[in-house]
Amino acid sequence: MKAHTHIRIFDTTLRDGEQSPGVSLTPEDKTEIARQLSQLGVDTIEAGFPSSSEGEKKVIKQIATEKLQPEICALSRANKPDIEAAIDCNVDAIHVFIPTSPVQMKHAIGMTPQQVLDAAVDSVAYVKKHGLTCEFSPMDATRSELPFLKQVCQAAEEAGMDRLNVPDTVGIMTPKTMTKLIQEIKTAVSVPISVHCHDDFGMAVANSLAAVEAGAQQIHCTINGLGERAGNASLEETVVALHLLYGYRTGVNTKLLYGTSKLVAKLTGIAVQANKAIVGENAFAHGSGIHTRGVTVKPLTFEPIKPGYVGRTRKLVAGKLAGTRGVKTELEEMNVYPNAEQLKEIVRRVKELGDKGKMVTDADLTALASAVMGGLVKEEQTVELRDLAVVTGIKVIPTASIRLALDGKEYTAAETGVGPVDAVIKAIQKITDSLANVKLNEYRLEAITGGSNAVAEVIIKVENDKGRIMSARAVGEDIVMASVEAMINGINKCLLREQKNRRNISSHLEPQRNGAATKRGLIKVTAVDAR
Amino acid sequence: MKAHTHIRIFDTTLRDGEQSPGVSLTPEDKTEIARQLSQLGVDTIEAGFPSSSEGEKKVIKQIATEKLQPEICALSRANKPDIEAAIDCNVDAIHVFIPTSPVQMKHAIGMTPQQVLDAAVDSVAYVKKHGLTCEFSPMDATRSELPFLKQVCQAAEEAGMDRLNVPDTVGIMTPKTMTKLIQEIKTAVSVPISVHCHDDFGMAVANSLAAVEAGAQQIHCTINGLGERAGNASLEETVVALHLLYGYRTGVNTKLLYGTSKLVAKLTGIAVQANKAIVGENAFAHGSGIHTRGVTVKPLTFEPIKPGYVGRTRKLVAGKLAGTRGVKTELEEMNVYPNAEQLKEIVRRVKELGDKGKMVTDADLTALASAVMGGLVKEEQTVELRDLAVVTGIKVIPTASIRLALDGKEYTAAETGVGPVDAVIKAIQKITDSLANVKLNEYRLEAITGGSNAVAEVIIKVENDKGRIMSARAVGEDIVMASVEAMINGINKCLLREQKNRRNISSHLEPQRNGAATKRGLIKVTAVDAR
Repeated sequence: MKAHTHIRIFDTTLRDGEQSPGVSLTPEDKTEIARQLSQLGVDTIEAGFPSSSEGEKKVIKQIATEKLQPEICALSRANKPDIEAAIDCNVDAIHVFIPTSPVQMKHAIGMTPQQVLDAAVDSVAYVKKHGLTCEFSPMDATRSELPFLKQVCQAAEEAGMDRLNVPDTVGIMTPKTMTKLIQEIKTAVSVPISVHCHDDFGMAVANSLAAVEAGAQQIHCTINGLGERAGNASLEETVVALHLLYGYRTGVNTKLLYGTSKLVAKLTGIAVQANKAIVGENAFAHGSGIHTRGVTVKPLTFEPIKPGYVGRTRKLVAGKLAGTRGVKTELEEMNVYPNAEQLKEIVRRVKELGDKGKMVTDADLTALASAVMGGLVKEEQTVELRDLAVVTGIKVIPTASIRLALDGKEYTAAETGVGPVDAVIKAIQKITDSLANVKLNEYRLEAITGGSNAVAEVIIKVENDKGRIMSARAVGEDIVMASVEAMINGINKCLLREQKNRRNISSHLEPQRNGAATKRGLIKVTAVDAR
Repeated sequence: MKAHTHIRIFDTTLRDGEQSPGVSLTPEDKTEIARQLSQLGVDTIEAGFPSSSEGEKKVIKQIATEKLQPEICALSRANKPDIEAAIDCNVDAIHVFIPTSPVQMKHAIGMTPQQVLDAAVDSVAYVKKHGLTCEFSPMDATRSELPFLKQVCQAAEEAGMDRLNVPDTVGIMTPKTMTKLIQEIKTAVSVPISVHCHDDFGMAVANSLAAVEAGAQQIHCTINGLGERAGNASLEETVVALHLLYGYRTGVNTKLLYGTSKLVAKLTGIAVQANKAIVGENAFAHGSGIHTRGVTVKPLTFEPIKPGYVGRTRKLVAGKLAGTRGVKTELEEMNVYPNAEQLKEIVRRVKELGDKGKMVTDADLTALASAVMGGLVKEEQTVELRDLAVVTGIKVIPTASIRLALDGKEYTAAETGVGPVDAVIKAIQKITDSLANVKLNEYRLEAITGGSNAVAEVIIKVENDKGRIMSARAVGEDIVMASVEAMINGINKCLLREQKNRRNISSHLEPQRNGAATKRGLIKVTAVDAR
């Protein structure tokens, strides 16, 4: 039975998510996120709170004209001006809320229970009079007195509400107490029940799922769990758990979860923690030897969710806890094939680096393999940084000049940019674009906290002419120099790979055939297979 | 009854937490975290996995010599060499683990159930023979066949295990299934039961708490929820929920939670998401008008946890959803007191900025107030940036020269640094140190993702000679220029505050008495109250 139950996903990234302190989206941002949510397959998009500002009203109206698949909903307090502002936006549904808990009735809105009851009924009726779908929320339901809560819900149902949303406004529920509350409310109303959970104690997802187990048919979610304070139930966790652990259905295309998370992180500026479930950088990464060995032999050993199911790929990371198997797989991904003896020595050195508290980057691993295996890994024909000068300031266009050695020859270039990093990356690209067919795909600078002399970590992704993306990393106290080093590391990785492919073809060492031939000296490459 | 139940907190930040891909702690880092965990009041510190590397063994030994309050524990596979490596470290307890699920027995370790059973028994007996406390984990317990799982647990108990830990190795449990499993296991063993939950579906905390409700007496936690993949149950969420929602006791001093989280984030390099419960930057921040009005009138309206309980303070943030009350409170914190008419206009302009997708920083708010209130806010005597030149490169010492105008006079300075940002911040400080008594307290650059021309956001905290810390923010495509702007904003905020205080004292506008008197012109300030 439950396997066929469709749970509605009510996305409130653009409303409660945008209420995240520090988040402010432009109208273009909001519209872009709405389109992505429609692609993702949510059932409702809560587009905003029209009465909060003129600009907000305008963008909700804009989203409503986009003719997206999901129901478009606007938030409204339980009063006529708010509802009229929402109606003006041409939305499909209005989400009316009013507090019903003693503390919020008294201190947040200064109304008596009778006034709250009347406002709820009048508002729902007013929305329905205009022919719109009405979702009603008794705010702070979980701290409300149960008899009054039930009375308000029943009155709202009589006034015509289409869905009842139960907000755990300050996130104080547990799965057990939520189960009981939903069971109680189900005795009072017959419309579909929704929940809106906050994560103040880290249980928004579990509480939402407990509500579904108790009969709720809709969950309020946000991408990356954004929202007031600790945020709301994260859509990605909720949906994947509904599908894989609870056996319910939703309209969400899980393959788009990762991309959606990245988009929202970028536009809101709220980065996702590395160890966040489903969408964090480490969610499908494995470091320790036991785990990397396990997943390379049989993914199910340490991988409860197939990475591709949520639009991800597996990542293996070497370090002091690394095992032989993981390092071997990592090296193979770079087309480096040490023998058993060499591998053992590489692993020993990886652990030695790890013991010193050093993160072992791909570049480190290549360097170690090179040292152990001799000329087999590092080739002469890589890019080498010879000279660099960067200036910026007031009335100074950020400018970089650079000299690189490539295949024995020196090349110089100068470029301006919006800042010193931009200038230097452009200068490097000016040289390597024509010589090495490598383009910058993504630039990432990890957050720096501490003094102005704290160590910066730059991760870049470069793309070769086959569309293959490789990442490289560099750390340093000078942001500009770390950026340059990361970029050079990335270009070298691309070149190394080309050379490996070339050698593999000529010596028939392995079956790969993503062939390449020299075009301009040893470095230049022409694609021989269809892209 | 349960109000008096003490739940043991087994912290595995230094073991499973350090297994987070990309994390690598130095011996000094690990020791510092261990000391902090001892201060925090955890019951056990799992210090590491001795057999993984020589360095790891050394640091565990070091932590064991520190004579900290908590039990010091080391992880060990179920074999003699591993156990001996752990014994060598002089720890109090050894945590022995071996997989018991079909998929892990077959593919991760290649052993038959009988071999697993024998290894478990032999290992527990071997630990006990050496007089150490033995915690035993049937790894992947939640995917094991229940009869075999019970058989292994019973055999381990007969061999002398002191505690049984039930690992949800790949995070697939729900509160309901966890409750049932713990109830089942309790029928098989009588030693205290522990759980170790992973967060792959976002439910590690809820599952841990469900286990406690079913009778478990210990929870494995990590600071910030670090750990393999999506990590483990986060200690801060678990403990606060145990205390405030479930009514259990732990030995944890919750006031140290935030500081501990910051330390671990700094040393591991894994930043905490802004909307992470308890320890995220936004967990006690309020943005929307309804919420800011609520908490300023009565904190309980929208604050389920008192910020001070976990070592935090409340934060109000203006934006397009801002309300009059919140903006008024924010301005008051900066000693700015608009009248009703002025306040209304400031709020209107705040919303206008917010509508454009702009984050409204404190500096913006001051600027708006200044524009609306005229000379009442912005004074002439602030720092103004006149000239700036910054260079870096190869064989170039990062150098900055700067000219600032302060109180009508111009000052120039040059400094070198480890990078261009460091150089320029030092150059600014060289001038303002002697003139304005303002020091840089913290420099933070938010993560940048996108191209090399993506917008950087710099947040700095400056401290005046009264020890008051103020933050300022700037955004821009040039990291160096954004850093300068943030620093200048911060200094101006400090100066503005001094001037306000001064004026307030002279005009008796309000009761504050953190007085100040001019020392060198209008800007200089001498503390008249004890620091």
